[in-house]
Amino acid sequence: MKIDILTIFPDFFRGPLDFGIIRRAQEAGLAEIAVHDLRQFTHDKHRTVDDRPFGGGEGMVLKPEPIFESLEALAVAPQSERRSGEARESVILLSAQGRRLDQALAGELSGLQRIVLICGRYEGVDERVGQFLADREISIGDYVLSGGEIGAAVIVDAVTRLIPGALGNEASARQESFTAHPPVVAGEGPSSTCSSGGLLDYPHYTRPADFRGMTVPQVLVQGNHEEIRRWRRRTALEKTLRNRPDLLAQAALSKEDQEILAGIAQDKLS
Amino acid sequence: MKIDILTIFPDFFRGPLDFGIIRRAQEAGLAEIAVHDLRQFTHDKHRTVDDRPFGGGEGMVLKPEPIFESLEALAVAPQSERRSGEARESVILLSAQGRRLDQALAGELSGLQRIVLICGRYEGVDERVGQFLADREISIGDYVLSGGEIGAAVIVDAVTRLIPGALGNEASARQESFTAHPPVVAGEGPSSTCSSGGLLDYPHYTRPADFRGMTVPQVLVQGNHEEIRRWRRRTALEKTLRNRPDLLAQAALSKEDQEILAGIAQDKLS
Repeated sequence: MKIDILTIFPDFFRGPLDFGIIRRAQEAGLAEIAVHDLRQFTHDKHRTVDDRPFGGGEGMVLKPEPIFESLEALAVAPQSERRSGEARESVILLSAQGRRLDQALAGELSGLQRIVLICGRYEGVDERVGQFLADREISIGDYVLSGGEIGAAVIVDAVTRLIPGALGNEASARQESFTAHPPVVAGEGPSSTCSSGGLLDYPHYTRPADFRGMTVPQVLVQGNHEEIRRWRRRTALEKTLRNRPDLLAQAALSKEDQEILAGIAQDKLS
Repeated sequence: MKIDILTIFPDFFRGPLDFGIIRRAQEAGLAEIAVHDLRQFTHDKHRTVDDRPFGGGEGMVLKPEPIFESLEALAVAPQSERRSGEARESVILLSAQGRRLDQALAGELSGLQRIVLICGRYEGVDERVGQFLADREISIGDYVLSGGEIGAAVIVDAVTRLIPGALGNEASARQESFTAHPPVVAGEGPSSTCSSGGLLDYPHYTRPADFRGMTVPQVLVQGNHEEIRRWRRRTALEKTLRNRPDLLAQAALSKEDQEILAGIAQDKLS
């Protein structure tokens, strides 16, 4: 997969692209990531990339010309072919106004041959970029950031992990919270449902079993597989109920899960 | 405000902390950010920070000892004082199992004197860290990332912007999507409601007014302030309806907004 990042802060990515899975995926030839400086596509002495907004207001707006020209230099497929899915490419504008990233969308993107990430300033990117150039706008969450750079780093990480072969250990991609299940396979398109039941992950413990008097739950140390399975399911349900009750509403709950939840509710009452 | 980041990838932050508002906030003495390598707090030859999970399963789990020891070296207030709010400090574990970050939470954190961000691997951090050391777990979104480093960068950016004086232009913090309104003031505690009406931002345009035949809406060029205000409100409502209808349900809508929405609905029908 080819990933291009357009930014006015190319140095932002010195660290984030050079560690862990992203680094290994590049070394293995699974992901080819290039960072492009938008100022390369300006033609004035000051290399101007932004200007004041029409209609007044505070903040500066990224100009359309350097962004359109950089896309032309990258020889990306036309917007219509990207929108229709005819071209397996996507040009994404990182924007607080976009659709919110989730694991299903990350899975969808991981099936493409190429993604281009345009890092806006969040104060504004000329709307013509979103309208006539990008084929989608994505937000990583409901909070205000200085620019799209961090969002681009999030997408690179979330998507690269899902490229087949990118994780050293395929199994650990499947157990985590929010993971598409069955795992998303490149080329199969969007994953339909989310997560191994849609719950948060259960708690993890490692050695020492007793650290300053804080002990690991006995059930994990004793090694009865069926008891461990039940303990993990129960604690995942408890954690989801505590931190993200919104996920329970959409989760695929078994009869056993329903009984566990009823038990938790009863414990609270007594 | 003091921000400490604990990580096994300190080099990740070479770029992200060195640009824009975060850089300026550090130069102005408004934010003091330090990155600490967890491996400094190991005592074996291999500087081991992780180990296999109790109870079996894939992936490695971050060990408790280096994390507890690093917190001790930082002389953070006791967990009970942080939880009660007696100490204006917070130790945050970045975790997919945490409460989801939003602008209100960023505002709450910006009122503290110190935050410590523990970057876990998302495969797992020994649960005793979340239970006995951190006072909260935060997730930046419903997607799987390799580690907490990107999440820490998100929090640093979202929080630093809200420190009074950090933005060169205070006004532009207020107009953006998700921005707490009235602006959060350090020391006033959690912001109650979110956003200037809770809508996405309206579209921005800058010069040229005609770029390759793609023109800026006439109303913005003509300069009638009242018409511009109405156009911006209408387009913000349209964009929110299209990309994030979930926000409309909680938004503070005026009578004028209701009429605009009714008009949009009618346009769709005809």
